[in-house]
Amino acid sequence: MYKRVAIEFSYDGTDFYGYQIQPSVRTVQGELEKALERIFKVKVPTVAAGRTDTGVHACGQVAAFDCPNPRLSENDIRNALNANLPGDIYVRRVWFTHDKFNPRYEAKKRIYHYYILNSEFKDLFLQRYVWWFPYELDIEAMRKGARFLVGTHDFAAFSKKDEEKENTVKTIFNVRVVKLRRELILIRVEGISFLRGMVRSIVANLVKVGTHQWPPERIEEVLLSKDRTESAGLAPPHGLFLYRVLF
Amino acid sequence: MYKRVAIEFSYDGTDFYGYQIQPSVRTVQGELEKALERIFKVKVPTVAAGRTDTGVHACGQVAAFDCPNPRLSENDIRNALNANLPGDIYVRRVWFTHDKFNPRYEAKKRIYHYYILNSEFKDLFLQRYVWWFPYELDIEAMRKGARFLVGTHDFAAFSKKDEEKENTVKTIFNVRVVKLRRELILIRVEGISFLRGMVRSIVANLVKVGTHQWPPERIEEVLLSKDRTESAGLAPPHGLFLYRVLF
Repeated sequence: MYKRVAIEFSYDGTDFYGYQIQPSVRTVQGELEKALERIFKVKVPTVAAGRTDTGVHACGQVAAFDCPNPRLSENDIRNALNANLPGDIYVRRVWFTHDKFNPRYEAKKRIYHYYILNSEFKDLFLQRYVWWFPYELDIEAMRKGARFLVGTHDFAAFSKKDEEKENTVKTIFNVRVVKLRRELILIRVEGISFLRGMVRSIVANLVKVGTHQWPPERIEEVLLSKDRTESAGLAPPHGLFLYRVLF
Repeated sequence: MYKRVAIEFSYDGTDFYGYQIQPSVRTVQGELEKALERIFKVKVPTVAAGRTDTGVHACGQVAAFDCPNPRLSENDIRNALNANLPGDIYVRRVWFTHDKFNPRYEAKKRIYHYYILNSEFKDLFLQRYVWWFPYELDIEAMRKGARFLVGTHDFAAFSKKDEEKENTVKTIFNVRVVKLRRELILIRVEGISFLRGMVRSIVANLVKVGTHQWPPERIEEVLLSKDRTESAGLAPPHGLFLYRVLF
């Protein structure tokens, strides 16, 4: 008898080659499955809500697996995982769920946070978690640009590479540009699912607007072009967090 | 003609064996003097306001040196230093000062910050910069205990080891215990100068009060004992920052 288990966990993406398991490099999924194998002495496949790229962090990633030992409680599993995971992965919550729970297909909403340090000075203590951008940014212009992204659109221009097999039509519920404190800007993007590199591309395009290199309306033109070469490229990965997944 | 230069700089103490230069280990002063030697092609001795221990951070350390090239501006020096320092040291400010400026002896006030994450959950993204303490803390009791420390006292019980040569009478202006947000506690200590390990010892003793293992009055007893064995030991170094030095 297996019990289906869901976990909510954080990781610091700095020292990982992304989420998805790959041979011979350190990945989050690889470390998670190694820990599970150490605990249960059998291979335990996992499935997660979001496959973050190299250098991207998470504070609310969700994964699921079948637990080979039905006698363990939710708390036992949490403690066993945290005792066996490396210091840059941490499980916050564990719960039993229905037999077929698949966080990838059942996620109703994914929320990403992107942090920009808009300061003349670098901040050593934030440097792994923010994009340090020392030139002036017009927040109001960025908000105007962001409005064009809300809704259901073909986001082909906002992807990392041509993904011919994937449907590039995606739904964005909300893009908020928030001044957290004097020099820290949060770009919060809520949607159902995302193309690879989509949030980092949205951020890079909004920053073009923030510096007045582009008018806000250029965001709509990029969107309508469906052409990646019209777009501003990708913001660096280390400012990005998979913040929450809602089911 | 030398010009005396003062710099204000930050460092992440994680990967340093403390501030003070030592042979064959990586120290902040060692990296600073290496950078200066690369820039000026001569050895440039430095003197700093505070010699932080292994693992302790700074966001407002101040050092001074004689600049061998009188044609460089303050900004030139700042840029040259930041280009030659490793990623975990960062110079925020450079200014010319009087010929004999010695930050160690001229500091009128030193402010240390100590951060405690008082949460059931670890925070991966703060773990290098806070002491994760998952048991309940009574802030009001800690504040009561802290009051006994303010003033001029013999702090012999609050030091790292017997320092026979040093005067253990020190003046503390203020010890504040602040709830920054729900789970983050700041202990801010302001004084003229400090014994080695003194702030970490103050924090460890106040935490004993916060958990109700000790009544607040026990802080006064420890102080009056002048005996390190009466004291609660040292809080871990990675929660501590040399925050500001005032002249």
